[in-house]
Amino acid sequence: MRASKAFISTLREVPAEAEIVSHQLMLRAGFIRKSASGIYTYMPLAQRSLQKVMKIIREEMNKAGGQEIILPIIQPAELWQESGRWEVYGAEMFRLQDRHGRDFCLGPTHEEIISDLVRREVSSYKEFPLLLYQIQNKYRDERRPRFGLMRGREFIMKDLYSFDKDEEGMKKSYQIMYDAYEKVFSRCGLKYRAVEADSGAIGGNISHEFMVLAENGEAELVYCEQCKYAANVEKAEAFPEKLPQEEPGKMEEVYTPGASTIEKLADFLKISPKKTIKALFYEADDKLVCALVRGDRELNEIKLQNSLDCINLQLASEEAIKNKLGYTVGYVGPVGLEGVKIIADKEVPYVYNAVIGANKKDYHLVNVMPGKDFNIDLVEDIRVVEEGEKCPKCESPLKKARGIEVGQVFQLGTKYSDSLNVTYTDENGEIKKVFMGCYGIGVGRTLAATIEQNHDDDGIIWPMSIAPYHVVIVPVNYKDEEQRNYAEEIYQKLLSEGIEVLLDDRDIRAGVKFKDADLIGYPLRIVIGKKTVKEGTVDLVRRATKEEESLAVNEIISKVKDIISSELNEKDL
Amino acid sequence: MRASKAFISTLREVPAEAEIVSHQLMLRAGFIRKSASGIYTYMPLAQRSLQKVMKIIREEMNKAGGQEIILPIIQPAELWQESGRWEVYGAEMFRLQDRHGRDFCLGPTHEEIISDLVRREVSSYKEFPLLLYQIQNKYRDERRPRFGLMRGREFIMKDLYSFDKDEEGMKKSYQIMYDAYEKVFSRCGLKYRAVEADSGAIGGNISHEFMVLAENGEAELVYCEQCKYAANVEKAEAFPEKLPQEEPGKMEEVYTPGASTIEKLADFLKISPKKTIKALFYEADDKLVCALVRGDRELNEIKLQNSLDCINLQLASEEAIKNKLGYTVGYVGPVGLEGVKIIADKEVPYVYNAVIGANKKDYHLVNVMPGKDFNIDLVEDIRVVEEGEKCPKCESPLKKARGIEVGQVFQLGTKYSDSLNVTYTDENGEIKKVFMGCYGIGVGRTLAATIEQNHDDDGIIWPMSIAPYHVVIVPVNYKDEEQRNYAEEIYQKLLSEGIEVLLDDRDIRAGVKFKDADLIGYPLRIVIGKKTVKEGTVDLVRRATKEEESLAVNEIISKVKDIISSELNEKDL
Repeated sequence: MRASKAFISTLREVPAEAEIVSHQLMLRAGFIRKSASGIYTYMPLAQRSLQKVMKIIREEMNKAGGQEIILPIIQPAELWQESGRWEVYGAEMFRLQDRHGRDFCLGPTHEEIISDLVRREVSSYKEFPLLLYQIQNKYRDERRPRFGLMRGREFIMKDLYSFDKDEEGMKKSYQIMYDAYEKVFSRCGLKYRAVEADSGAIGGNISHEFMVLAENGEAELVYCEQCKYAANVEKAEAFPEKLPQEEPGKMEEVYTPGASTIEKLADFLKISPKKTIKALFYEADDKLVCALVRGDRELNEIKLQNSLDCINLQLASEEAIKNKLGYTVGYVGPVGLEGVKIIADKEVPYVYNAVIGANKKDYHLVNVMPGKDFNIDLVEDIRVVEEGEKCPKCESPLKKARGIEVGQVFQLGTKYSDSLNVTYTDENGEIKKVFMGCYGIGVGRTLAATIEQNHDDDGIIWPMSIAPYHVVIVPVNYKDEEQRNYAEEIYQKLLSEGIEVLLDDRDIRAGVKFKDADLIGYPLRIVIGKKTVKEGTVDLVRRATKEEESLAVNEIISKVKDIISSELNEKDL
Repeated sequence: MRASKAFISTLREVPAEAEIVSHQLMLRAGFIRKSASGIYTYMPLAQRSLQKVMKIIREEMNKAGGQEIILPIIQPAELWQESGRWEVYGAEMFRLQDRHGRDFCLGPTHEEIISDLVRREVSSYKEFPLLLYQIQNKYRDERRPRFGLMRGREFIMKDLYSFDKDEEGMKKSYQIMYDAYEKVFSRCGLKYRAVEADSGAIGGNISHEFMVLAENGEAELVYCEQCKYAANVEKAEAFPEKLPQEEPGKMEEVYTPGASTIEKLADFLKISPKKTIKALFYEADDKLVCALVRGDRELNEIKLQNSLDCINLQLASEEAIKNKLGYTVGYVGPVGLEGVKIIADKEVPYVYNAVIGANKKDYHLVNVMPGKDFNIDLVEDIRVVEEGEKCPKCESPLKKARGIEVGQVFQLGTKYSDSLNVTYTDENGEIKKVFMGCYGIGVGRTLAATIEQNHDDDGIIWPMSIAPYHVVIVPVNYKDEEQRNYAEEIYQKLLSEGIEVLLDDRDIRAGVKFKDADLIGYPLRIVIGKKTVKEGTVDLVRRATKEEESLAVNEIISKVKDIISSELNEKDL
């Protein structure tokens, strides 16, 4: 492709709308253009990289036994009503009516429609395992679409669904897909980590997320370098610290003026924050709940929600607390609480002679014995794990990192085959429920995550496997006949070798061409200039390292071929 | 792929919902499944064939200089309001609102959104010609979705848009795309014809449709075997027959009891139907119009609509005519008509001493001289061309055929750059309007049309280039170890040669496997049976001709390779 013909337009300014690097660079380098909030046009450069990601995905899904289909985007409401999710999805689902007034939605996900297909088409145990997938747009009317392709309202996803006759089969399919996902992200040239994850609205018990490691990633994860444990902090199991046992002291009220935070309180009383207990009030499906964690810990709302098994969870408003209990926020504590469920983190029972809010302004209780001086209804792991804590599996210190979720896999069990009655006949003629799994990859998100992980101040640094082009040829002065001839010759030779190359034949300053090349991020750049004409050499520059080497014109083709094939093969292992 | 693992389910019965062959066969052979009216799931077999059609399209679009992008499916209303088509599209457009109450539609076509992109990104004449395309779902809420993939509400289309600086450039781009379309349909293995077409709601003056020839095609076309003229009958130019001039006779009313049709009238009066004139009343944008064609001709409503330049055209109701004129339908004629526009076909002025309805039950007027005895406001070509008539270009007799429109190309001129203000700066610094073209291919429709053209009583006959698999191997008895070994050996060898092969390893009767193979329509079938074990030969059957030949096992691989590569190359020319 010639730059003079290519539909590529780069921007010098950082667009105001873009907050994160990948979004900024995709706009600046001409990969995407916004059409409406969270809705984008993919320009030719993005389309080329997307096609490569999709090809890698297709190849790995097919190798794993997946069969590709295309499901409708526009889905009849009836199926969602049957599964019970028509209401659950709320405002995040795009809904519409056809000319006859029938209700439809734009698929935010496809469990319903594929379950319906399989219940109609499959009847015998012989047909399992069955792995079906598609690569297509999904629609979610996000409250706050942001970060470009990271959180759009129209986005490309690969979703695969596995169907098995029993839990064992499901687990086998899950492992096959887990392995296939590792291959996909390795081949895309990404540094990633698979972590245990919460299964959220999709459901099921076991789930993993595939996280591309990036400093500014939205997600936080912990991992153990000793054993292979890794988890999203949302999900990561905390190893409870047991403080040394103590004889009970005398519980009494202490005047603690201005001690409105744990830090101030510990300072004031000259104790460790570990000796304090924080009480937080939540509304869980309209019931008031008191959650307790040790003063130096942070509460994990997702764990709390899962422990309470509720659909809606939010911090209780001052008003809700006052209505129920009669007192204001601050200095709250569990002693004397009545009619409110108390859920405590696993560490709370081990805080002996604890300091706790006295439910009275500027007062705390000291020497409180949990379980004795106040009742605990439920003890669960409801706190956030911190860096350096013990790994729940091997007790080595945990590390923390940030990442971007690009894929997630779920063991759904019979969640959807129960609600949608997806059954089969087993070896003995018995009717049984099908076991499902589902497996998603955000295709556009993978591009964005790649950029978050691979960029510098000048622009994007594409891994060879998903770069829009492998090579850019930059003649310093294309109008110079001799330079042009060299450029054209190398261009044609690379094309004939099947290498994806862009020839920057534009009649503009060389500096602009270099800036564009760095911004767009082609892995290799061949520079043709006066030296080429005089000495018969060209400069080969690696985008990632800016490493530059001078090569004879007759060496350049084989050198480029070698680099590309070695970089592609490395990822293909 | 092994049939035992493949997600293929065939049906013995013809589904009641399917009226035409391609729809019936796609359902029976397990290519598609209905999800809602006009909305389908594409099963793995269809997906494989679709991918091949899309690959051919991509290759030809890229060769022609097209650059692939992905435009949003969900489009903001503002753009459609700006172009004036938000209202025009009416009930056929799926509309929806997001959570903030903003209006969107699901793109029925993409002129607006691409014009918006180009007006924002392109500013100089240097950037033309620019050819951008995508392959994606389109949405049209058809009043009566039918015929499976022929007329769906959600369907896959390739749409390319060309942008040029002037009319000459547009015509050049148009020709390039026209040629590329010929290559696409040839490579798909189709017998087709490009015909002049009406440009309908998309607009512009010059348009061609690509018609796959098929007996049951929805469209009718005429073509000339001498010159290359071919046109959709909707558009085909009529060569007016001039009847011999006559001296005017005496106009008078004649009693013609029961002569309610032209045939009966001609019989009754013992004249040629050519001597009669038919009058038809239409409501054109709420105005009553009287259209005249010779009695033996058929009126062409699309030509009439174009001649009248109206948006809505329909036969006038009895009531509307009575309200306006005061008399009932039947025996109507133009003599004495007042306040109604009269449009006559080009042949009407050449009917001397014509017979015309007298506007009186059971009476006609004879010896009427058009233009003298009644006024004509407009003379236009408004009739349907018949087989055997003279070609408008070379006057040889025209032939008629039926076809299915699989693609259409349009010269749009400045229609959209006018309404959406798409401009560029020319060589002299002047601001000018961009000239556009648009070019569509129905991808799913191409599959359906292929089946309409290529099938027999037993099922589909796929052209090699878009068959879901090239070869099926049918071991008569897969349980027989020796047969199985032969089958597996041939299967592995074909796979290693990169040939797409399905091994029917199912433990079912051979007759069922043969029936399925014929129904699905794999181009080649290799049969392995007792003879294979005894004599070392296999039968190779061509699906299209049912031709069968016996080959030694060691010959089969090279034979199959030869057939496939020769059939693919033929189409690739």
